Amino acid sequence: MLKGNQTWIFETKPVIISSAAVGGPFEAKGALSEDFDLLHDDVWLGEDSVEKAEKKLLEEACEAAINKANMKKEEVQFFISGDLMNQIISSSFAARTLGIPFLGVFGACSSAMEGLALASLLVDSKSAKYVVAGASSHNIAAEKQFRYPTEYGAQKPPTAQWTVTGAGAGLVAQKGDGPRVTSATIGKIVDMGISDPYNMGSAMAPAAVDTIEAHFRDLNIEPSHYDLIATGDLGKIGHKIATDLLAKHNVNMSSTVFTDCGMLIYKEDQPVMAGASGCGCSATVTYGHLLNKMKKGELKRILVIATGALLSPLSYQQKESIPCIAHAVSIEM
Amino acid sequence: MLKGNQTWIFETKPVIISSAAVGGPFEAKGALSEDFDLLHDDVWLGEDSVEKAEKKLLEEACEAAINKANMKKEEVQFFISGDLMNQIISSSFAARTLGIPFLGVFGACSSAMEGLALASLLVDSKSAKYVVAGASSHNIAAEKQFRYPTEYGAQKPPTAQWTVTGAGAGLVAQKGDGPRVTSATIGKIVDMGISDPYNMGSAMAPAAVDTIEAHFRDLNIEPSHYDLIATGDLGKIGHKIATDLLAKHNVNMSSTVFTDCGMLIYKEDQPVMAGASGCGCSATVTYGHLLNKMKKGELKRILVIATGALLSPLSYQQKESIPCIAHAVSIEM
Repeated sequence: MLKGNQTWIFETKPVIISSAAVGGPFEAKGALSEDFDLLHDDVWLGEDSVEKAEKKLLEEACEAAINKANMKKEEVQFFISGDLMNQIISSSFAARTLGIPFLGVFGACSSAMEGLALASLLVDSKSAKYVVAGASSHNIAAEKQFRYPTEYGAQKPPTAQWTVTGAGAGLVAQKGDGPRVTSATIGKIVDMGISDPYNMGSAMAPAAVDTIEAHFRDLNIEPSHYDLIATGDLGKIGHKIATDLLAKHNVNMSSTVFTDCGMLIYKEDQPVMAGASGCGCSATVTYGHLLNKMKKGELKRILVIATGALLSPLSYQQKESIPCIAHAVSIEM
Repeated sequence: MLKGNQTWIFETKPVIISSAAVGGPFEAKGALSEDFDLLHDDVWLGEDSVEKAEKKLLEEACEAAINKANMKKEEVQFFISGDLMNQIISSSFAARTLGIPFLGVFGACSSAMEGLALASLLVDSKSAKYVVAGASSHNIAAEKQFRYPTEYGAQKPPTAQWTVTGAGAGLVAQKGDGPRVTSATIGKIVDMGISDPYNMGSAMAPAAVDTIEAHFRDLNIEPSHYDLIATGDLGKIGHKIATDLLAKHNVNMSSTVFTDCGMLIYKEDQPVMAGASGCGCSATVTYGHLLNKMKKGELKRILVIATGALLSPLSYQQKESIPCIAHAVSIEM
C-alpha cells in the first residue's frame, strides 16, 4: 500500500525466513567475518575469470539461503537480483543456474534493497509465496570495469572505497519465523554534479539523505523509531556528509544509531581508504550481520538505505556527473 | 495474485491511460511510422553522443505519455525502465530528468514487458496510483557496445537483426479509459548453448516458447484466447523456430495470430536482415502500434512476450553462451 509519495507499507509484514552471506579472503579478515555463511580463501573461487567467481558467490548465497530454510529451488517462485557488472551478468547467469523465474534489477549498489523491496511487495500482494532477493559484487571485477585493472597498481585517493567481494541473499515468505519487512521507500535520482568515480560516497550522500527524509515524512516517524539506521556504502566521508546534511535539515541522527555498512564490514587496519562499497556491501552486511543481530535480539527495528551511483564507464568518459539513488527498507523483529 | 507457478493475475486490471512511441529516421521510413508520436530526422537528436540521444528518446516518450494524459510528472509515483546500455544509463539519466522515484530493471530486450508487468503489479496492489513504464534502444549505441562501431562497416550475416532507435512508454493507472493489463508471466532463463551475438533470434526463441507455454498452463487457456500474440524481437528466423517448437509441443499458433514486433516495424525493402531487435522494438510497437489498434477496436485481447538476450560483451568474449529470457504481458480492451 502506498503511503505518502514514495513509500510502500507491507501490511502482511513479509518474513525473511532465511538469509545468507558469502565472501572472499579479504572479507574473511574483516570485522564481520563471523556473520558470513561461507568465506573463500581464493578470490577466483577456482574459476577462470573474476566475473565467473562473482556469479558463483551469488549462486552460493542464494543456494545457502534456500537450504537454510530446508527448501528446494523449485518451491521458490521468483529470483530478483542485481549487480554492478555490465548487463548484470552475475545475476543473469546465476538465474540460469538457479532456474527460478527471474526479475533483473539495476540500481548499482542500491540493487540489494531494490530487490528486497520488490520481493517484499510480491509476497505482500500474494503475487508470490517465496522470493529470493540477492545482490553481489567482486572487487577485482568492479575495479577492472569501472576504474583500472588491479594489476596496473594504480594509486587511489583517500576518498576511494573498496568494493566488497561478496554476495548476500534473503528468502522472503508469507509466513514463518524471522525478521519482517515492514516498509520500503523508493528513491529518486539526486545528482549534485560530482563526476569523480573515486569519490562515490560524496556523490551518493545527498541521495541517501533524500530517501531517509522521504521515509520519515511518508511514514510520519522520527529517527528514534529505529535502533539502527544503516546506509549501504557511503563510507566515512559520505557518512559525515549525510550526517551533516540531515542535521542542516533538522534531522538529528544519533551516532550510536546512524551508521554505514561500508564502515562496518572491514577492520580499521584494512587498507580500504574511505570504507567499503559495492552491491555486496549492503547485501552481505544486511543478510549476514544485521539480520543475525536481529535474531539474537540485539536489534529490534532497523532501516537499511542502500545507495547506488548510477554511472557507467562510458557516462564518465563522456564527462557526465554521477546520478545517485537510494532505496530504504525497514525490517522489524 | 499468483496463478500457477509464474503468472500474476491483476484483479483490478490496471489501465494504460496513455502511451507514446518515439523513433529515429529509419523508423520514420518503416511500416509503422504513423503509430509514432514523434519521429526524429537526425539519429543524434542534436546531442553530442548517441548514448545521450537514446536518453533523450526515452525522456521524450515518457514526457509524451504523461502529457497525453494531461498529467504532470509530480503526479506519477514511480518510473520503471530498462535499456541495453551498460548500467542502463539511458534509463538512469532519464530518471534524473524526470525526477520521479525510479526502479531500474534489466532484462535486455525483455525490459519493456518486465517494466510493464511490475508497473501493473504496483498499481494493482495499490502501491502506486500512477506508474510510467518505459524502455529504449539506439541502433548505433547498441552496435558500438555489443558488436562493432557502425563506422567500421562490418558485414553482417543474414541472421543478424537491426536494433531499433526508439523508446516507448506507458502510463499505468488504477482507473481511467484505455487498454487494461490483465496478467503477466515472468520467464525463467533458457540457454540452449548459442553464443553468436549475430543470431539472437535463434538464441531467444526457446525462452519465448517456455514463457508462452507457462502462460497458457498457468492460466489454463489456449492460444485462441488472444487475437494477437506478439513476441518482442525474435525476427524472421527466431519466429520460425518458435512456431516450430510450439507445434512440436502441440501448441499450434495460427500465422494470423502469432507474430513478432521485430517483423512488424520495418518495411520489406529496409535492409534489416532477419528483422528488428532492441528494447525499443517491443516498446515502440506495443506502446505505439498495438495499443493504437486496440483503441481503434481492431484488437481486443493481446499477449506481448518481450524477449531478452542477457549477454554482455564480456560474457561473449569469455566464450559463454547466451542466457535468454522472456516476459509476457496480456492486455485487453
